[in-house]
Amino acid sequence: MSDPRMRFVVLLSGGMDSCVAAAMARRKGSIACLHCSYGQRSAGRERRAFEAVAETLGASERRIVDMTHLGSMGGSALTDQTIAVPAADPSRREIPATYVPFRNAQFLAAAIAWAEVLGATRVVYGAVEEDSSGYPDCRESFVRAFNQLIEVGTRAGSVLKVDAPLLHRSKAEIVRLGAEMGAPFHLTWSCYKDEEVACGKCDSCALRRRGFREAGIADPLPYRDS
Amino acid sequence: MSDPRMRFVVLLSGGMDSCVAAAMARRKGSIACLHCSYGQRSAGRERRAFEAVAETLGASERRIVDMTHLGSMGGSALTDQTIAVPAADPSRREIPATYVPFRNAQFLAAAIAWAEVLGATRVVYGAVEEDSSGYPDCRESFVRAFNQLIEVGTRAGSVLKVDAPLLHRSKAEIVRLGAEMGAPFHLTWSCYKDEEVACGKCDSCALRRRGFREAGIADPLPYRDS
Repeated sequence: MSDPRMRFVVLLSGGMDSCVAAAMARRKGSIACLHCSYGQRSAGRERRAFEAVAETLGASERRIVDMTHLGSMGGSALTDQTIAVPAADPSRREIPATYVPFRNAQFLAAAIAWAEVLGATRVVYGAVEEDSSGYPDCRESFVRAFNQLIEVGTRAGSVLKVDAPLLHRSKAEIVRLGAEMGAPFHLTWSCYKDEEVACGKCDSCALRRRGFREAGIADPLPYRDS
Repeated sequence: MSDPRMRFVVLLSGGMDSCVAAAMARRKGSIACLHCSYGQRSAGRERRAFEAVAETLGASERRIVDMTHLGSMGGSALTDQTIAVPAADPSRREIPATYVPFRNAQFLAAAIAWAEVLGATRVVYGAVEEDSSGYPDCRESFVRAFNQLIEVGTRAGSVLKVDAPLLHRSKAEIVRLGAEMGAPFHLTWSCYKDEEVACGKCDSCALRRRGFREAGIADPLPYRDS
């Protein structure tokens, strides 16, 4: 049952994971959705997905935070057009070129600040450890360290916490969970590129497609190569 | 001796503490200075102070990050013109109305990201525990928690750390230290208001003036009431 007194701030990227995490939170209470725009290649497309998902889930509030400094600092294929987006490679062990330095820490810090102002008790973070291309900010140790930071760095008595409900789920489990919750997968966008039709080939497309395939559920998004 | 291979990213607000911390780092190596503008009352004046201090200390790089989302989220007298800036009250124990929710976590996260891109090994943070009006993000426990977050949240093998060299110094000690280092105090700005002459009465002015008085050194800034 949804309880309007339970207030969540949800980091909503426009992708499928945070959409499912938002749908889960919406079942329990009201959601205020935060989207960070940081000069990534797919900024325009992701923003449209954010608006559509937040609207469909009945978010009580929406906020877009401009973090273009992340893009202008460089250091990542997601924001620097001179670095190529690598094709998916499941055998790769090192952190890929699409890693944006300390990106999610900045997103979470903005979400925590907003939650403190709104009086929300949870920030919902749709990170997935297993499927996250080895990014250090998608691991349980990172979420734990962030909660420790909140405990010492916000007003005394704050009960605020980051909740990462999908951290240990596989992509296929997330697809199934989202289907159960009625998550609007048709409105989400996962591709690293900014095109009308997803490329189907980048890490993010590859992980998504495998997830739907393994779940035995049809992905409602069209792909360039299918 | 200054070693150009030692690279520091310094969070430089325009105030006296971060100016002294920057001068200390400059003795050891090169400094890249980061300033965050967040819709605070004194944004214009602080930015001018930042530019002048960075220039005078010979910063190798300067960057201003736009964090106006912090201001537009509200919740603080520093960014919301409808909340009064309280006069200094040394007997006060609770967190004052000038606290900006999770502000410094956002500043530090941006500085860490930039340091990761630049290959700097230290982020210099001029926080002062004793004199910081009870803000939770100016305590040693906060710096420790942040360093833990960096350890788990940046590329493996990163040696990046936040260094808060003034954390346990009194304001008078910081004044003396700055005088020894030749820190350009005359270019700094501490007042919470955005005027040509500092008010002399807000928490920040009061702490600064007491520091200079206790150090037995003349404050080069004029004040409205003197």
